[in-house]
Amino acid sequence: MDVRACQRQAIMIDRQTVAAAAKRIAGYVRHTPVLRCDLGSDSPVTLKLELLQHAGSFKPRGAFNRMLNASLPPSGVIAASGGNHGAAVAYAARSLGATAEIFVPATTPAAKVARIASYGARVIQGGETYAEALIASRARQAETGALEVHAYDHEDVLAGQGTVGREFEQDAPDLTHILVATGGGGLIGGIAAWYAGGAEVISVEPEGCPTLHNALQAGQPVSAPVGGIAADSLGARQVGVLMFPVAQRFVSQAVLVTDEAIRAAQRLLWEDFRLIAEPGGVVAAAALLSGRFVPPPGARVGVVVCGANTDPAKIAG
Amino acid sequence: MDVRACQRQAIMIDRQTVAAAAKRIAGYVRHTPVLRCDLGSDSPVTLKLELLQHAGSFKPRGAFNRMLNASLPPSGVIAASGGNHGAAVAYAARSLGATAEIFVPATTPAAKVARIASYGARVIQGGETYAEALIASRARQAETGALEVHAYDHEDVLAGQGTVGREFEQDAPDLTHILVATGGGGLIGGIAAWYAGGAEVISVEPEGCPTLHNALQAGQPVSAPVGGIAADSLGARQVGVLMFPVAQRFVSQAVLVTDEAIRAAQRLLWEDFRLIAEPGGVVAAAALLSGRFVPPPGARVGVVVCGANTDPAKIAG
Repeated sequence: MDVRACQRQAIMIDRQTVAAAAKRIAGYVRHTPVLRCDLGSDSPVTLKLELLQHAGSFKPRGAFNRMLNASLPPSGVIAASGGNHGAAVAYAARSLGATAEIFVPATTPAAKVARIASYGARVIQGGETYAEALIASRARQAETGALEVHAYDHEDVLAGQGTVGREFEQDAPDLTHILVATGGGGLIGGIAAWYAGGAEVISVEPEGCPTLHNALQAGQPVSAPVGGIAADSLGARQVGVLMFPVAQRFVSQAVLVTDEAIRAAQRLLWEDFRLIAEPGGVVAAAALLSGRFVPPPGARVGVVVCGANTDPAKIAG
Repeated sequence: MDVRACQRQAIMIDRQTVAAAAKRIAGYVRHTPVLRCDLGSDSPVTLKLELLQHAGSFKPRGAFNRMLNASLPPSGVIAASGGNHGAAVAYAARSLGATAEIFVPATTPAAKVARIASYGARVIQGGETYAEALIASRARQAETGALEVHAYDHEDVLAGQGTVGREFEQDAPDLTHILVATGGGGLIGGIAAWYAGGAEVISVEPEGCPTLHNALQAGQPVSAPVGGIAADSLGARQVGVLMFPVAQRFVSQAVLVTDEAIRAAQRLLWEDFRLIAEPGGVVAAAALLSGRFVPPPGARVGVVVCGANTDPAKIAG
């Protein structure tokens, strides 16, 4: 194995970097609550209600950690996003008095575009996928010199998202299995780095966006299809290179769920909990509800419910 | 003061009866989470997310405590309700294998009628107000011999609702002021009996349904108007006789809010927290957001968000 390959395989974040992130972003993000319940399982289940976070998803954790750990240039910050990360960067920029430009693809729902704009950011919509929006944002960044806040593949972003795991362990220390949605892998990368094998971390993705599932099979990040109802939040064509070695070491399974299971989970969360969650926010719950993940006897399962930026009328109507 | 007046003034529930209720209903209700946040106030605010309870409001606590502390006759249970209590009784009856008949007035929203029926109860809709539904339910109860589960004016119901206060103190022991919605007064009666002066308990009602506000001014429960957008959940023409002495002793203020403030609070809870709450569920938050309750310096305010049985499209659309 040559040196470059070795560098690629190094794990850049651990419990210390996550703990440092938690300290840095405290006061800017919410410590979201947990709820013990039953959820289509004989095992006790604990939900981490991260959908109650500022800007409607876990994304402000990474965005704040990135921005607070850098010097903000006069040209502000710039990001590409399917929507949630853009809302988070716009929210964080407003909190920190910086300007923000957010590049989103055509698939980003109108509700998310409006949300980003509501925080005062300039939104540029174009291209078919997140990957294309990222290319456009980088061309613009080269002109303006704004600070790039990557949606997942940056050490500070990963460490920020990892604070979800830190809070979850703090509030529910007995969990044995943690189900987490994967798109670009920032959330699960951070959480898996936090637990570092202390609990089994299981990736859940829609069948239409199997980025980590395919990467783990291939032994490296590979391009995967981007489709289905959760594509706007989980449609990063491939997982980040920084999270991949973390996943290889600390993610025990990569489960896939159908769009129908995602819709059913959205309906159940409203009917039984009065929670409105977006498709990408419920994929982890969908794995349990659909039986794609079956907890072993004695398991105590944690489920991260990670986003709510959707139109409630589509779920409960 | 004659003996009857003395009996009327006796306080029937206290920390012991609430603790006994908590033990009785554990396993049937959710221990709902709290969320520390800022909410239109310089003071730190802690939300008690009781809208995540089974059946979408706090009401199952009292319903289960009443039903578990009685013998259930073959004819099952019967209740009158503006909607939330009916859903809770229907939910609890199903859990305990009993049949339920629920009487609701014409003002009960279709979403709540459907919710009650979804739990397998028989719903009888008629009369203009809760008070009329109560009369109808009592005529029927005399025929069937079913167990009456009163919506608020029963010791077991009050003690059950008081478990909201017990959990709130357990999870946020530093609170100095607790804001609670009042309709018939079951929730605030139970919570005030639990705190018993340990924190200031403040009643909040819509201007259209000032039952406790008017009762405290009159020195006894009196008939009050029933109107406005929260009437289906807070429209009990007068507060219960059992809660009134508790309120006289342990409720420090009775604040009123406008329907517009209630609507604004609903919108804010969605925009900033991704929570869908019904009008009666947000009146306590509305008091803080509208400035009708201004926390004194150094206050640590708790707000009970107590119901979510509404059509989300009406809030977020």
